[in-house]
Amino acid sequence: MKKNGILNRELSYLIASMGHGDILSIVDSGFPISEDVFCVDLSLIAGKPKIVEIIIPLLEELEIEKVLIAEEIKMISPKYHQKLLSIFPKNVQIEYIPHEKFKDRVRESKGVVRTGEQTSYSSVILVGGVTYHGEKEEGL
Amino acid sequence: MKKNGILNRELSYLIASMGHGDILSIVDSGFPISEDVFCVDLSLIAGKPKIVEIIIPLLEELEIEKVLIAEEIKMISPKYHQKLLSIFPKNVQIEYIPHEKFKDRVRESKGVVRTGEQTSYSSVILVGGVTYHGEKEEGL
Amino acid sequence: MKKNGILNRELSYLIASMGHGDILSIVDSGFPISEDVFCVDLSLIAGKPKIVEIIIPLLEELEIEKVLIAEEIKMISPKYHQKLLSIFPKNVQIEYIPHEKFKDRVRESKGVVRTGEQTSYSSVILVGGVTYHGEKEEGL
Amino acid sequence: MKKNGILNRELSYLIASMGHGDILSIVDSGFPISEDVFCVDLSLIAGKPKIVEIIIPLLEELEIEKVLIAEEIKMISPKYHQKLLSIFPKNVQIEYIPHEKFKDRVRESKGVVRTGEQTSYSSVILVGGVTYHGEKEEGL
Amino acid sequence: MKKNGILNRELSYLIASMGHGDILSIVDSGFPISEDVFCVDLSLIAGKPKIVEIIIPLLEELEIEKVLIAEEIKMISPKYHQKLLSIFPKNVQIEYIPHEKFKDRVRESKGVVRTGEQTSYSSVILVGGVTYHGEKEEGL
Amino acid sequence: MKKNGILNRELSYLIASMGHGDILSIVDSGFPISEDVFCVDLSLIAGKPKIVEIIIPLLEELEIEKVLIAEEIKMISPKYHQKLLSIFPKNVQIEYIPHEKFKDRVRESKGVVRTGEQTSYSSVILVGGVTYHGEKEEGL
Amino acid sequence: MKKNGILNRELSYLIASMGHGDILSIVDSGFPISEDVFCVDLSLIAGKPKIVEIIIPLLEELEIEKVLIAEEIKMISPKYHQKLLSIFPKNVQIEYIPHEKFKDRVRESKGVVRTGEQTSYSSVILVGGVTYHGEKEEGL
Amino acid sequence: MKKNGILNRELSYLIASMGHGDILSIVDSGFPISEDVFCVDLSLIAGKPKIVEIIIPLLEELEIEKVLIAEEIKMISPKYHQKLLSIFPKNVQIEYIPHEKFKDRVRESKGVVRTGEQTSYSSVILVGGVTYHGEKEEGL
Amino acid sequence: MKKNGILNRELSYLIASMGHGDILSIVDSGFPISEDVFCVDLSLIAGKPKIVEIIIPLLEELEIEKVLIAEEIKMISPKYHQKLLSIFPKNVQIEYIPHEKFKDRVRESKGVVRTGEQTSYSSVILVGGVTYHGEKEEGL
Amino acid sequence: MKKNGILNRELSYLIASMGHGDILSIVDSGFPISEDVFCVDLSLIAGKPKIVEIIIPLLEELEIEKVLIAEEIKMISPKYHQKLLSIFPKNVQIEYIPHEKFKDRVRESKGVVRTGEQTSYSSVILVGGVTYHGEKEEGL
Repeated sequence: MKKNGILNRELSYLIASMGHGDILSIVDSGFPISEDVFCVDLSLIAGKPKIVEIIIPLLEELEIEKVLIAEEIKMISPKYHQKLLSIFPKNVQIEYIPHEKFKDRVRESKGVVRTGEQTSYSSVILVGGVTYHGEKEEGL
Repeated sequence: MKKNGILNRELSYLIASMGHGDILSIVDSGFPISEDVFCVDLSLIAGKPKIVEIIIPLLEELEIEKVLIAEEIKMISPKYHQKLLSIFPKNVQIEYIPHEKFKDRVRESKGVVRTGEQTSYSSVILVGGVTYHGEKEEGL
Repeated sequence: MKKNGILNRELSYLIASMGHGDILSIVDSGFPISEDVFCVDLSLIAGKPKIVEIIIPLLEELEIEKVLIAEEIKMISPKYHQKLLSIFPKNVQIEYIPHEKFKDRVRESKGVVRTGEQTSYSSVILVGGVTYHGEKEEGL
Repeated sequence: MKKNGILNRELSYLIASMGHGDILSIVDSGFPISEDVFCVDLSLIAGKPKIVEIIIPLLEELEIEKVLIAEEIKMISPKYHQKLLSIFPKNVQIEYIPHEKFKDRVRESKGVVRTGEQTSYSSVILVGGVTYHGEKEEGL
Repeated sequence: MKKNGILNRELSYLIASMGHGDILSIVDSGFPISEDVFCVDLSLIAGKPKIVEIIIPLLEELEIEKVLIAEEIKMISPKYHQKLLSIFPKNVQIEYIPHEKFKDRVRESKGVVRTGEQTSYSSVILVGGVTYHGEKEEGL
Repeated sequence: MKKNGILNRELSYLIASMGHGDILSIVDSGFPISEDVFCVDLSLIAGKPKIVEIIIPLLEELEIEKVLIAEEIKMISPKYHQKLLSIFPKNVQIEYIPHEKFKDRVRESKGVVRTGEQTSYSSVILVGGVTYHGEKEEGL
Repeated sequence: MKKNGILNRELSYLIASMGHGDILSIVDSGFPISEDVFCVDLSLIAGKPKIVEIIIPLLEELEIEKVLIAEEIKMISPKYHQKLLSIFPKNVQIEYIPHEKFKDRVRESKGVVRTGEQTSYSSVILVGGVTYHGEKEEGL
Repeated sequence: MKKNGILNRELSYLIASMGHGDILSIVDSGFPISEDVFCVDLSLIAGKPKIVEIIIPLLEELEIEKVLIAEEIKMISPKYHQKLLSIFPKNVQIEYIPHEKFKDRVRESKGVVRTGEQTSYSSVILVGGVTYHGEKEEGL
Repeated sequence: MKKNGILNRELSYLIASMGHGDILSIVDSGFPISEDVFCVDLSLIAGKPKIVEIIIPLLEELEIEKVLIAEEIKMISPKYHQKLLSIFPKNVQIEYIPHEKFKDRVRESKGVVRTGEQTSYSSVILVGGVTYHGEKEEGL
Repeated sequence: MKKNGILNRELSYLIASMGHGDILSIVDSGFPISEDVFCVDLSLIAGKPKIVEIIIPLLEELEIEKVLIAEEIKMISPKYHQKLLSIFPKNVQIEYIPHEKFKDRVRESKGVVRTGEQTSYSSVILVGGVTYHGEKEEGL
């Protein structure tokens, strides 16, 4: 079996398919998910699993350069908002966009992971980064 | 087997796939259903099953925030219209739109349930709601 | 969205497809799952989610009449074994079979739910029951 | 739309696909249905629709020559049994077989119709007949 | 087997799928049929079967409210045109449109039935009707 | 469009797929057709089209070396039997086998053509022949 | 097996699917073929088979009314051009269009046959004709 | 485009899929080909293309270690037989087996190439070889 | 097995499918690949295999007429850039376009080969050429 | 993109699908691979990539308990054999079986990874292990 990290098959495939700028969305249980997007439904019951429970192990294996969040989170779910910010490394840019735009961006996802989260405006878009810049000497 | 509520497999899947704002349409037997929409055909014979027979158990398992009905119902099928209104909880908003617009909206459905109903303008669009608002203390 | 209970789409479909005597297997993360069986992979990371976390909400919605467990559990994972027994209602028969036979039975499953459990011989087979016996007066 | 009789699409297809000796099974809600058999799930909730509600309109469109029922019905569900017998025309042969054998035969079905029936041993196998015997003069 | 009417499986399915305003096209053997439309090819050889041979039994099972025909039929195939009109009930509206427009409408068909007909401009579009209007007392 | 002979797409494909010893079955409307066999359903209504109407144009395009018929035809449908024999060229061997065996052979068909025929034991198995024997001088 | 003419299965299907105005393209080995078009790849090696080797037997079975060729053929491949013209019957209209337009038309093909031809601008579009005009007396 | 050798897509895929001991069958136009085997139908008309026309370019790209031929070829198609032998390199073993056995082996093919060959017992089975034996120094 | 050159099945198929002007993209490991494009993922680990390791054997089998590279390569990866230029024959035109445009063109690819390359702006688009111009004498 | 380890999508999915006792085969370029087994073809050209190049990074992510090798390797490819043994951790059991048996076991693989290796008897079967034994205190 797989030794470490994320054990899930579909999620392992998704992580390995992500390219620079590709979008992986982690959404709450009531989020409307378009049929055209590949969905990994990890939801079990209300509150299980939470969005941060998915993102923390994801950040171990997936290089990201930016995070998109619905701006309404600041007003509606402030405590969750603070917890969410705490799990991202400093070098990752956090961008806030209106929820309507947020929903449009989720439709462009490489994949959507559905959770049991039941907090308003809690969904997160992870924008794929890239682990190399310029060229390595021995790379030639 | 499943203990309670809706026993149907496809309908159980559809209910669990509904997100906030997603559309589930319950239509009469002669309603034109586009090939692009997922259809659960529960129709048997004329009048069986009726639309209200489907909606009542659905409301037990599915959170909805709004109902769309063709405005022509008021004139053409008044008695059915009253019976239909009686099965929805008070907090659910009822919106009337022209039948032509109603048909367009049905094409955007997450799923369409076909019944044996044979009453004009009797179809109903259920707009998915969400069971949580803001953030729960223990949710963090 | 779905109001209560199990939110997961594939699991909702599976529960509604279970008949009397059908098998639903809840397995640990390293369990070998045949390609011929419908698999709902809910595993995330080592230990998450646990098998009991899946079974408890399942028992709310799914009628079962028997549980099959690998007999090796008694020797190898006694504490887990006691915890497992504690979540099943008294009227459910618990049957112990050798792990090799257990693996054969899992291949006949209606569906397999993969978890993050990392306890030896922790997998469980739920045998579907039926909620009615004989005939009801008004049933005719 | 279809003028009369059975409105359901999948059922209309099934009826037109039935040949002489082919099997169409109408089963109760807890009956174990193999994934290899084409299933039309018309079940809604416990008791809806009943098996006889399906069979009566079926007999209008489908020629059958024999009916198979589980012999245990006589003891366990006598009233239902009498009602069931009453809906079949006199020329249709009724054959009783043990429930284990009955389940094997259902696996050979051209199609299975799942109902909401909740009466033990209530499932019915309809064996397709043929509407012509020998040759018609003008048939040549 | 199916007792009466149209025996064909795909056609039985199509009839049961037709809704109010849906289009079922019966076309001659040389008619260009788009790959995106569901086609039931009943053609055998030149002239067999004819379009009217298909429409007559269809009208027994399918409620239609309108018929579309290419206007060029009046000039090019007058005798066929008269025969065609004779098979439709008085209450069905006949509408003539240019052949180019006719071909566009066929592309929107729920299904196309291909025949062996070899008469110019002989194809026919059947527009689905509905068997009920307003509400029935017992329908509530 | 296709200039001559059989216009039907699926039948044209089937004819071109037939090899030496392959089986093409032309069956009556009530014949039980296994789901595993490729079926071209040309049936329309009772008696239309007849089996001989299919075979005659087939013999123009398809080389056959043998015909299998159910032996019961001699007793049950003698007139049809004579008509059937009359359409086959002298060099084609006619073999009679019991209907049970006949049904087994049909399950091995490359394809089954379903007709509207309503005559008992009227189905026919065409065994593919080959148009060349030995080697042609210029063939090298 | 098939007695005469084109033996190829896919090509036999394509010919029988062609309607009036439908396009069948016969292209050289280097022609860019869109993934969205049904392609019958008969190419073997450079020069085998040639385009004319395909068209000659096709004309025996397929009614065409027009041929489209890239106008650049006149300048770049004059000898091939003459040979190509020689194989078409006098009543078939030959139309020359710029190669860019030609490539667009090929994308609308019912099917594309790829050959081993290695001559510039050698591809040919066959536009389906129809074998009947007006109405036949006995056709009614 | 591909510079040299076999231009055909499916054949290029097949060649690259062949392993040591895998079977690629090149068959005459009337050979019975099972639906379960991947078939590349390159047949056009009687005699075109011939089996040797396929094999010669194949031998350029495909390593084979053995050839199977139906023993009946010696008696029935002697001249073709000699021509066939002449195209194989000396180091390839030629094995003769009864045609019935030959047909069984073709059913195990990785792929079957259908030609227009019309010579009895002319089909050929190519048994894949391997281009390396033992280990190469720099291979480590 | 395949004697020489590129052994990979999907790549062999892709090469044989390339037409004049078709695009085959060889991209680095972090390149965003659209789900709508056929992808051959040959990546193993960071740096393995490199883009030039793929292109060199490809140029043996695939005729190309132009190469597209992101213009940013000159500034960001100059050494890699020089190495890349060195592997293309003199007659192949090298065109530089902005990376945003480059990404759009990759979406039009016949196929994308993913590598382990980890050098910025290292991806390459190969534009298919054609091996013949005008007409060959014996080609007629 | 994925930060570390194996970048390949299909391989990432395979690793995450492996259970205790499941088989992942890494085979040389000429190995016969059954169509029924999921194949990740990473082969490029002769010798690239080598089997050990695949196994080394695999061992980082995949827990294995046993390795199967064809016994003929000792005699035919001794140097390769030593190199192969050197890459496996001491606790992994190495088992030698006859090549014929080895080929049978590969047919039972969860997946087969094809390489460019060109060394006789060089293929390797990795038998999945499991990372946990007994029960962990906090696991309850």
